[in-house]
Amino acid sequence: MLNFEFYNPTRIVFGQGRYNDLDRLIPPHARVLVLFGGESARKNGTLDMVYQGLGKRHVESFGGIEPNPTYETLMKAVEQVRANRLDYLLAVGGGSVIDGTKFVAAAVFASGDPWEILLSHGANVKQALPFGTVLTLPATGSEMNSGSVITRSDIKAKLFFTNACVFPQFSLLDPTRSYSLPPRQLANGIVDAYTHVMEQYLTYPVNALVQDRFAEGLLSTLIEIGPRVLANPQDYDLQANFMWTATLALNGLIGAGVPQDWATHMIGHELTALYGLDHAQTLAIVLPAMLNERKADKRVKLMQYAERVWGLKEGSEEARIDAAITRTREFFESLGVQTRLSGYGIDAEAIPPVLKQLESHGMVHLGEHRSVDLDVSRKVLEACL
Amino acid sequence: MLNFEFYNPTRIVFGQGRYNDLDRLIPPHARVLVLFGGESARKNGTLDMVYQGLGKRHVESFGGIEPNPTYETLMKAVEQVRANRLDYLLAVGGGSVIDGTKFVAAAVFASGDPWEILLSHGANVKQALPFGTVLTLPATGSEMNSGSVITRSDIKAKLFFTNACVFPQFSLLDPTRSYSLPPRQLANGIVDAYTHVMEQYLTYPVNALVQDRFAEGLLSTLIEIGPRVLANPQDYDLQANFMWTATLALNGLIGAGVPQDWATHMIGHELTALYGLDHAQTLAIVLPAMLNERKADKRVKLMQYAERVWGLKEGSEEARIDAAITRTREFFESLGVQTRLSGYGIDAEAIPPVLKQLESHGMVHLGEHRSVDLDVSRKVLEACL
Repeated sequence: MLNFEFYNPTRIVFGQGRYNDLDRLIPPHARVLVLFGGESARKNGTLDMVYQGLGKRHVESFGGIEPNPTYETLMKAVEQVRANRLDYLLAVGGGSVIDGTKFVAAAVFASGDPWEILLSHGANVKQALPFGTVLTLPATGSEMNSGSVITRSDIKAKLFFTNACVFPQFSLLDPTRSYSLPPRQLANGIVDAYTHVMEQYLTYPVNALVQDRFAEGLLSTLIEIGPRVLANPQDYDLQANFMWTATLALNGLIGAGVPQDWATHMIGHELTALYGLDHAQTLAIVLPAMLNERKADKRVKLMQYAERVWGLKEGSEEARIDAAITRTREFFESLGVQTRLSGYGIDAEAIPPVLKQLESHGMVHLGEHRSVDLDVSRKVLEACL
Repeated sequence: MLNFEFYNPTRIVFGQGRYNDLDRLIPPHARVLVLFGGESARKNGTLDMVYQGLGKRHVESFGGIEPNPTYETLMKAVEQVRANRLDYLLAVGGGSVIDGTKFVAAAVFASGDPWEILLSHGANVKQALPFGTVLTLPATGSEMNSGSVITRSDIKAKLFFTNACVFPQFSLLDPTRSYSLPPRQLANGIVDAYTHVMEQYLTYPVNALVQDRFAEGLLSTLIEIGPRVLANPQDYDLQANFMWTATLALNGLIGAGVPQDWATHMIGHELTALYGLDHAQTLAIVLPAMLNERKADKRVKLMQYAERVWGLKEGSEEARIDAAITRTREFFESLGVQTRLSGYGIDAEAIPPVLKQLESHGMVHLGEHRSVDLDVSRKVLEACL
């Protein structure tokens, strides 16, 4: 097991309709900015319940945070916070709204250009506004971690930052909030959570037995419930298991004491920034190709994955590994998520710009061995066609 | 899944020899009381490394905290803290030292008799001194939770309290600190961690898929490494897995959103208080008898346990359940821990005093269904003979 430090102070409040808990979770004299995305949070009643839970506090709203939240939009929220001396943020939405709120929380205190927060990957963040979240879409795990991914439209850049100052103080997880999500968003969430686990699990063995068992438990659960969530989106227990699984997939626990990969995510980010694919679509495309290209590096864990997650115990090692990768691809496809660039009308001409972006963002030594250079990325992308 | 709230702000610093990290983890002007048990922490060098890590801070020591730490001893530490205006505690030891430190941290602020903390099970705790821990014995999970069990010698009472004020601020987990533990303590630790998982897992199903998978992962890991840790106590990876497993067994995670039992623990506490058995010995005695007595209540989860943890898929349901309970007993015995009262020279005459103590401590509606009354406890104890 590798040395590690694990710290996660986010309080999880889990269950249906616990909006009155907001009153105890947020300071009584807080001046609150509620941040949200499109109109679904209003239409399905979540915002109303949130406002009611906030009681007599001074509350303002900021809507319109996009999927892949942009610097440009979020800076308007920063202005509102500064102008009206707001001191508490409440994100109501999925990973995009929560990631955006983290950026706002940190950017309010930035002395120079807040885009530096992304360029430094969070190293220059010293302070952030306190905030909580009301999760409406299980997927990213942002509700219980200190990471955030922000897009800048003008330069087509999608970069991450992480800093302990932007752990949510609390996250209210109400599985019924996902009942009305469209199938595409549910499917994306399942793929996203699955890939988060894979980035931390499918590397090389370091004898971290519990981390492996936990990761395998999360993967097995997603395989078990994924298609059922799509078929029965109003089943409380299915949504509850999906929501808690997605949160645990990226709250630092299964990544503590093990090597991590994240090359699939970094390449995926560039595909979204350049061609507008959903985040999870990029993961569904890149992950199977990535595993296949780097079979040698990942051999031992691929064997373990094949056996423990997919129950593949027969045949040659090569056959079992290939079957496990195929099963992964088929699982994503079974959720209705295409796993080839061609499925989204993207051809080989798209590859050089992605490589150029990776280079310009310093993403030239990716993966658990830092061995995913531009040549490997090119091979992976070619295998994604 | 049941509604839940999960909050655990303890920072885990994991790895060999990270004592210099104490300097960053503890405020620079803290006046520190280092609490420890017997002489082993001094003999094996842990205390020296701790003192060095604390640098130029004002540091005092308080040794002699017993296994099953007593109110009487701990009140002397409370006096020392008050007399010398100490403001930070550092527990160096296993669960007894850490539990004792939690009591000291809370008792310093008690207005009346600090024993009230135990009688209220922590409900009356409003404030506690900040403290960290340096763990030397994997077992209780106290290093990452807010619970504590304290014994009062004069009235032979062993009671618990829990309060969010007594989460350790940090715990330094150095697997090499367990290298010199005697086999009995290692075996006790394995049994203790195993039983902690069982108290949260082996109840009735509530469709909490991830909690079940995580619990099964911890149990499988303990079964895999238990005998190997005893045979190779200086194997870093084995001790690292044991230490992290024991921490995760009782940090609130696997118990979030599921029913919990704890009847085995409550009966075990009385056996320790009256007859001086090691805590883990009492668990090894009571757990198999408890599972057997309450087979009907626990049927579905016993079947799942039999299949997923012990791989028992053949034979009648009854046979598989019996085999799983037998395997559990054999696992404890394989570690050298006796699982019958008779193995410790205790006979049927011991039972009535235990029942009397349970009654006087209000332990008359135990278990996940509150169905373990004195009659059930009596049957369980008779099956322990």
